[in-house]
Amino acid sequence: MSNMPWQDKPENCNDVMWRYSENPIIDRYAIPTSNSVFNSAVVPFKDGFAGVFRCDNKAVQMNIFAGFSKDGINWDIEHEPIQMKAGNTDMIQSDYKYDPRVVFIEDRYWITWCNGYHGPTIGIGYTFDFKEFFQCENAFLPFNRNGVLFPKKINGKYAMLSRPSDNGHTPFGDIYVSFSPDMKYWGEHRCVMKASNFADSAWQCTKIGAGPIPILTNEGWLMIYHGVINTCNGFRYAMGSALLEENEPDKVKYRTQPYLLGPAELYEQVGDVPNVVFPCAALHDTEEDKLAVYYGAADTVVALAFGKLSEVVEFTKNNSL
Amino acid sequence: MSNMPWQDKPENCNDVMWRYSENPIIDRYAIPTSNSVFNSAVVPFKDGFAGVFRCDNKAVQMNIFAGFSKDGINWDIEHEPIQMKAGNTDMIQSDYKYDPRVVFIEDRYWITWCNGYHGPTIGIGYTFDFKEFFQCENAFLPFNRNGVLFPKKINGKYAMLSRPSDNGHTPFGDIYVSFSPDMKYWGEHRCVMKASNFADSAWQCTKIGAGPIPILTNEGWLMIYHGVINTCNGFRYAMGSALLEENEPDKVKYRTQPYLLGPAELYEQVGDVPNVVFPCAALHDTEEDKLAVYYGAADTVVALAFGKLSEVVEFTKNNSL
Amino acid sequence: MSNMPWQDKPENCNDVMWRYSENPIIDRYAIPTSNSVFNSAVVPFKDGFAGVFRCDNKAVQMNIFAGFSKDGINWDIEHEPIQMKAGNTDMIQSDYKYDPRVVFIEDRYWITWCNGYHGPTIGIGYTFDFKEFFQCENAFLPFNRNGVLFPKKINGKYAMLSRPSDNGHTPFGDIYVSFSPDMKYWGEHRCVMKASNFADSAWQCTKIGAGPIPILTNEGWLMIYHGVINTCNGFRYAMGSALLEENEPDKVKYRTQPYLLGPAELYEQVGDVPNVVFPCAALHDTEEDKLAVYYGAADTVVALAFGKLSEVVEFTKNNSL
Amino acid sequence: MSNMPWQDKPENCNDVMWRYSENPIIDRYAIPTSNSVFNSAVVPFKDGFAGVFRCDNKAVQMNIFAGFSKDGINWDIEHEPIQMKAGNTDMIQSDYKYDPRVVFIEDRYWITWCNGYHGPTIGIGYTFDFKEFFQCENAFLPFNRNGVLFPKKINGKYAMLSRPSDNGHTPFGDIYVSFSPDMKYWGEHRCVMKASNFADSAWQCTKIGAGPIPILTNEGWLMIYHGVINTCNGFRYAMGSALLEENEPDKVKYRTQPYLLGPAELYEQVGDVPNVVFPCAALHDTEEDKLAVYYGAADTVVALAFGKLSEVVEFTKNNSL
Amino acid sequence: MSNMPWQDKPENCNDVMWRYSENPIIDRYAIPTSNSVFNSAVVPFKDGFAGVFRCDNKAVQMNIFAGFSKDGINWDIEHEPIQMKAGNTDMIQSDYKYDPRVVFIEDRYWITWCNGYHGPTIGIGYTFDFKEFFQCENAFLPFNRNGVLFPKKINGKYAMLSRPSDNGHTPFGDIYVSFSPDMKYWGEHRCVMKASNFADSAWQCTKIGAGPIPILTNEGWLMIYHGVINTCNGFRYAMGSALLEENEPDKVKYRTQPYLLGPAELYEQVGDVPNVVFPCAALHDTEEDKLAVYYGAADTVVALAFGKLSEVVEFTKNNSL
Amino acid sequence: MSNMPWQDKPENCNDVMWRYSENPIIDRYAIPTSNSVFNSAVVPFKDGFAGVFRCDNKAVQMNIFAGFSKDGINWDIEHEPIQMKAGNTDMIQSDYKYDPRVVFIEDRYWITWCNGYHGPTIGIGYTFDFKEFFQCENAFLPFNRNGVLFPKKINGKYAMLSRPSDNGHTPFGDIYVSFSPDMKYWGEHRCVMKASNFADSAWQCTKIGAGPIPILTNEGWLMIYHGVINTCNGFRYAMGSALLEENEPDKVKYRTQPYLLGPAELYEQVGDVPNVVFPCAALHDTEEDKLAVYYGAADTVVALAFGKLSEVVEFTKNNSL
Repeated sequence: MSNMPWQDKPENCNDVMWRYSENPIIDRYAIPTSNSVFNSAVVPFKDGFAGVFRCDNKAVQMNIFAGFSKDGINWDIEHEPIQMKAGNTDMIQSDYKYDPRVVFIEDRYWITWCNGYHGPTIGIGYTFDFKEFFQCENAFLPFNRNGVLFPKKINGKYAMLSRPSDNGHTPFGDIYVSFSPDMKYWGEHRCVMKASNFADSAWQCTKIGAGPIPILTNEGWLMIYHGVINTCNGFRYAMGSALLEENEPDKVKYRTQPYLLGPAELYEQVGDVPNVVFPCAALHDTEEDKLAVYYGAADTVVALAFGKLSEVVEFTKNNSL
Repeated sequence: MSNMPWQDKPENCNDVMWRYSENPIIDRYAIPTSNSVFNSAVVPFKDGFAGVFRCDNKAVQMNIFAGFSKDGINWDIEHEPIQMKAGNTDMIQSDYKYDPRVVFIEDRYWITWCNGYHGPTIGIGYTFDFKEFFQCENAFLPFNRNGVLFPKKINGKYAMLSRPSDNGHTPFGDIYVSFSPDMKYWGEHRCVMKASNFADSAWQCTKIGAGPIPILTNEGWLMIYHGVINTCNGFRYAMGSALLEENEPDKVKYRTQPYLLGPAELYEQVGDVPNVVFPCAALHDTEEDKLAVYYGAADTVVALAFGKLSEVVEFTKNNSL
Repeated sequence: MSNMPWQDKPENCNDVMWRYSENPIIDRYAIPTSNSVFNSAVVPFKDGFAGVFRCDNKAVQMNIFAGFSKDGINWDIEHEPIQMKAGNTDMIQSDYKYDPRVVFIEDRYWITWCNGYHGPTIGIGYTFDFKEFFQCENAFLPFNRNGVLFPKKINGKYAMLSRPSDNGHTPFGDIYVSFSPDMKYWGEHRCVMKASNFADSAWQCTKIGAGPIPILTNEGWLMIYHGVINTCNGFRYAMGSALLEENEPDKVKYRTQPYLLGPAELYEQVGDVPNVVFPCAALHDTEEDKLAVYYGAADTVVALAFGKLSEVVEFTKNNSL
Repeated sequence: MSNMPWQDKPENCNDVMWRYSENPIIDRYAIPTSNSVFNSAVVPFKDGFAGVFRCDNKAVQMNIFAGFSKDGINWDIEHEPIQMKAGNTDMIQSDYKYDPRVVFIEDRYWITWCNGYHGPTIGIGYTFDFKEFFQCENAFLPFNRNGVLFPKKINGKYAMLSRPSDNGHTPFGDIYVSFSPDMKYWGEHRCVMKASNFADSAWQCTKIGAGPIPILTNEGWLMIYHGVINTCNGFRYAMGSALLEENEPDKVKYRTQPYLLGPAELYEQVGDVPNVVFPCAALHDTEEDKLAVYYGAADTVVALAFGKLSEVVEFTKNNSL
Repeated sequence: MSNMPWQDKPENCNDVMWRYSENPIIDRYAIPTSNSVFNSAVVPFKDGFAGVFRCDNKAVQMNIFAGFSKDGINWDIEHEPIQMKAGNTDMIQSDYKYDPRVVFIEDRYWITWCNGYHGPTIGIGYTFDFKEFFQCENAFLPFNRNGVLFPKKINGKYAMLSRPSDNGHTPFGDIYVSFSPDMKYWGEHRCVMKASNFADSAWQCTKIGAGPIPILTNEGWLMIYHGVINTCNGFRYAMGSALLEENEPDKVKYRTQPYLLGPAELYEQVGDVPNVVFPCAALHDTEEDKLAVYYGAADTVVALAFGKLSEVVEFTKNNSL
Repeated sequence: MSNMPWQDKPENCNDVMWRYSENPIIDRYAIPTSNSVFNSAVVPFKDGFAGVFRCDNKAVQMNIFAGFSKDGINWDIEHEPIQMKAGNTDMIQSDYKYDPRVVFIEDRYWITWCNGYHGPTIGIGYTFDFKEFFQCENAFLPFNRNGVLFPKKINGKYAMLSRPSDNGHTPFGDIYVSFSPDMKYWGEHRCVMKASNFADSAWQCTKIGAGPIPILTNEGWLMIYHGVINTCNGFRYAMGSALLEENEPDKVKYRTQPYLLGPAELYEQVGDVPNVVFPCAALHDTEEDKLAVYYGAADTVVALAFGKLSEVVEFTKNNSL
């Protein structure tokens, strides 16, 4: 991937990941109707990149929009939200859509998102071209959030991470994996990992949820995730990583005790929801040892952070909870 | 079913359902270890009846026990809880089991219950003989309660009612139906019916959940369910009924605005959890027009109520919300 | 009032008020549709008595019903709820009605109740004959409960006690008085008395609300009211009394530190809402020195308690908070 | 109004309202004792402007202060709070005062505010000269906030918008209108509009409250109001607008689905209460088609926004919920 | 102790403890002012018994009263509450007193209770004759409840069990032990045992607290305690037992998984706070192998239960969590 | 103290305390592992200063670290947390440590902190050289925070301020003083001062807690403390002062109604917990009339404020609640 976004680590930086110097890359008013653009997903597409973006409008209605970019940094986002056609079902009710993820599997781009159907649950859709989109059966009953597909079948089945929730600002949340033979019926639900103890790793002690599509490394799946601590002034979201067994993704090999990146810049600390770093997508190039993570900042804008893939894996192994 | 339990309606009774005169039929200390026996399921079995009973022990641990009866009223309950073998999965984790339902489909007896797997969800098992039991995949992710199977496939698929929940004393709850081709993978989740508005029918305005196995009538599926109102002194559970379309069970044709039976006798009003009428099983004989509903009372004992099947159907149609 | 209900004090009773020996006087199933009959109001009418009764039906819908009695103990309650015609307004929306009070002023019987209009507030109506009823403007904005009229104008204005509330199981509540020149527009709102401190009188430390129509004595208005304590198992309602200045009813002269009557009989301790004694009406005969208080018990039935009017006044003065 | 504050729309601005370039116009330390100055009201007065300002002192006691300005931007605020004399009542108790509004009707300037009388309710006062102030009866029982008078009688009666509340950080809230023949007795309470559904317009889904005095346009009353969403990090306040029927102000003709202005500048996002845009007053000139809205920012300072009156009306019609 | 209360185990009883057949032994109206008498303490005294009784009056004010008995069953309780004189301090503030325990150590009877001093904490007092009482320094800062002294010094120091709390209906609570050289200054605080996991022993999963004075057996200290489960209808209190190391009472040797006695009789299930069994005192005779436990029932009356001391010890060992 | 940090008051400043112009003095990343450095304590030591610093690491684990400085502004903080040896006990369990205070008494430096022992309580330790540290018995049972020692014995006993708490984000909190003959056993607990009424001084109406070591002045002990108001967007912490009787420190002579310093700069308003000013230490020079207060800002960094000692005392007297 010769054109993936990249900046070398700043000289005085001792951290395993660092921010893009021109953050945020997408402003809250990136399209005419938007109040905020954040928690969005990107993938390589043709000779550039495509993405699915969460743009809340000025009525603070949540919806997802297609976008395209040559360099992964400067984006053209459609001004109209994605229109879904019937995929493997005619029941494509959707009161709202937010926090999308995108992944290419076999022959198409699959999209998952938090879908409003009597409360939040996991919506599934696909596209071949980011122009025509098809909506499938919801994966689960309400209430659920942060549904993230693995980028290939595991043991012959599709696999999805998710976080069972309630119908409010859920004050709990663990990561599960579920499987499907056909992207319509889901089962074999397994607990992957739980919020930590306060004393062990407080930044992730209230709830956790999967972020970008997991990346297969020679140490297993690298899963970047968000963790939440409930301070006396609300939830604070930071970013960590874990390594899961390749063929048994409910087995956690390592998981970072420290966070990789927490809210510390003004665009992460101030916004519609202060103190939020929420990763939703990643680009990587194993040969060049590059990792670029897209994250929503303060529920308001999109930002970008970089790391050496091998260093993130090593850090996860060496700082495991 | 010549031997199903029955008492004719008392002379001065104007209600559509009436209590068995010797209630409760099962005492809280029915087995040596029990603190309470309630919310239990029965089915015709051989020339009598078999059942699966919720017996909380004196440590208030929740588990399910097999039992047998000649007349459906006097029961011999095993002193040891059911031991599950691996069914369609090896993952048969179960931190606790409660509120079972039982139904015969095709060639075996299926059991569902509230299964402790990182919180409450719907456990599935089966038996051929009530001696050897096999546990299958949980139907759903946590959190869920009151999973109730339909007694035959609908459009070629197994169908299950359930109530998505949270991980505490859930203060909300609606009934959904889900489908499965194989009792392992579940999808096509549809909302069936919701807690009512306070002003329309307050006894069911906080949450509702399916009770016994639905009964097929010429007006569709008769679903007996519980409804809850949150009084200033806690939850009060009563029993109502609904009629669902035979082939589209997410379509509600009728649903009782009044309850059929509410806590009014001392054994329903006083106990470990006062003011609970919680139906879990029913026997019926369409030809003789008899219906017998087993319900847990005050989370402490098991009681029995009777009704004319046709009258319950008519009542549901004539008093619909 | 030669025919008001009465029983002399039992020999061994040292309390200032005592229960009717045949309590409860009205059963929960007093009319065919009722789930419970409680928190109801009575007045002398013609040569007997009339009343307005809260009968929740088996859908637990709350409504009010007219009733008649020769002796104040045996009641004929209409089977259909009161139908309101337009009184001083065409806006007679009423999502539900509960906890009525009745009083004769000048030329007609005025009724107040908790009226459902975007939440609970105080409904006002009147009748001349308990056959034809007219609904007026709500007295206040939501949220309010326990609106109780004084039985004559004070300083040329109608006067009403009430308890501002929230839209749930209000965990606070004080008594206010408001005035109106015309039963349509209300103002001059004054705080009368508040829930007590826990250490001073815990039975009334969570909230308080006026009960029957105040009775004019030579010590001012005798206001019987309910007080609530929030135990770890919910709200417990008991009955106390206060004496208010005749012409300035926001001035409290005396107020009982102990309760007059608390939940202690099974019909008060067990029911849809356990541990509730809720007074809503009183008959009295000053010459014969008799007082009879009607109260809802356990939100399920109606009961009756007696006292010597002069003794209740003395008790209030001698045991004042 | 030749001297009303104004700035033309910036070139690159596509929004219907825009901020004053020198915001905030009043600093938190504008008077020696103040911790914050915000949520304040202004009116044309003589050849300039007068205002009533909420200045919380450094004990965070809430009170209102008079102020004067030639240009509506630079203000001289008195260092002592307003002292009220008895108006149409001697009962002028006031534990605290906050969030004032001011309007000229007939012969005097009327002031409403959130008045502490056993909790928050709506205080009313008037002045002829902003030197001598008279306090009247509270309009309503507690608990209420955001009482806003219409600038002329409607159908011969004074009319007031308000928002019934609870006694804490009210997590609900709808707008009502009430009427009075005399500024003392209030009735004919009508629901005007409610918090929206989350899916329709989330920025106003938790609660809403009227802001400046409504402005009569040829499309009815233009009511600018605040709406609140409860994020996981607290309440976020933004500004919207609605058009009400001229003679039936409980009839909503249009209401903005998107907000007009939400917290996006640092002085709106950071302060004693982050993420608050709270409009309390407006100046307008119909002929020149100018609108200037004063709003509290982050419960800390006062800011100013502008719009073309006709464009705001058109926007409200064209983007109605 | 030849005259301690006793009844042999009923024939059909399989439990390790059984109720006195004439329960409750003390009625709620045992003294003229009382609303309820419960959670009280007794000790051998002269040729009979003395006690300290919690009698809430009809204002539901909490206080403690001395009482005397020849047989431990029929009690004469003083009509006036205990008046405390200054003991080892002049600071004997006490907003309220409840839940007393009594124990003889060395030369006097020590009393502990829940003392109102800016919230609940542990009050300490002593008496030589149950006529004259002396109040000492509170043992701890607020908030605390259920302070229970050991009946002799351990390693030369006084030792006290207690349960740190909050200032409401504390939804958590574990048992600690603390030490003092002089009954004035306390330290060396150690955690003894915690509320259990829900799945292991749900009856004690919300909170636990020490009950009677611990009894020294050849297996260590027998500590009878209460455990609480939070049902959807409130807290349910039952009684269990534990064995602690004689010289290191923070070491738990055994602890009952099942409860010894739970609410199952009407006087335990119905009252001011339903479903409460709350042990506060015990008499025992090691030679005769008798144990009598006094417990409050439903926060309303006092009841008595018996057991063989050796059997309770054995049961605790054989049914340990 | 010739070298204590100091800046004269800025010319335009009318406040009694003012900020250091180079705030914050310690950055969140001051040591390699830190996520934040705040709420820390300093004392004069040798020819400079020593300190104990709260550094949360990037797992958001809380611990305390020693540090040294020549000028009190530029600090060298150790990269490893303090290791405690056994002091007056072997029981030195500590799940976490935060919010330290340090004071020299007699022959050594005493350190108190919030110590994790089954929840937060007050840990005590000492050092002679800030290299070797010894941990003593916890002062109290859980739950407690903000334990602050007086700098000399009072009436021959050690004296400590503290704030009883619960085990979460405690929404209440008052200041108490306790005494000890030996730093091991504590008693004579007295209430010092409580959170204020909302109407009197809202900035301190939710909870209060002692800050730096009290300073003896000729008006008694100057206690600088934090006060909290619960806004709709969370807790806001500001700083006030009180004067306590020298020999009876539970007697409050004066207490500031206004705050001395509240969150108003970006580093106080934005950070991991916005809007926090939390004083933990002070240096003073009575002769030079200088006071320097160290405070945590936004739970993220350390800042410094100055005042004239005599002016702070005067201000406290002249602006007393």
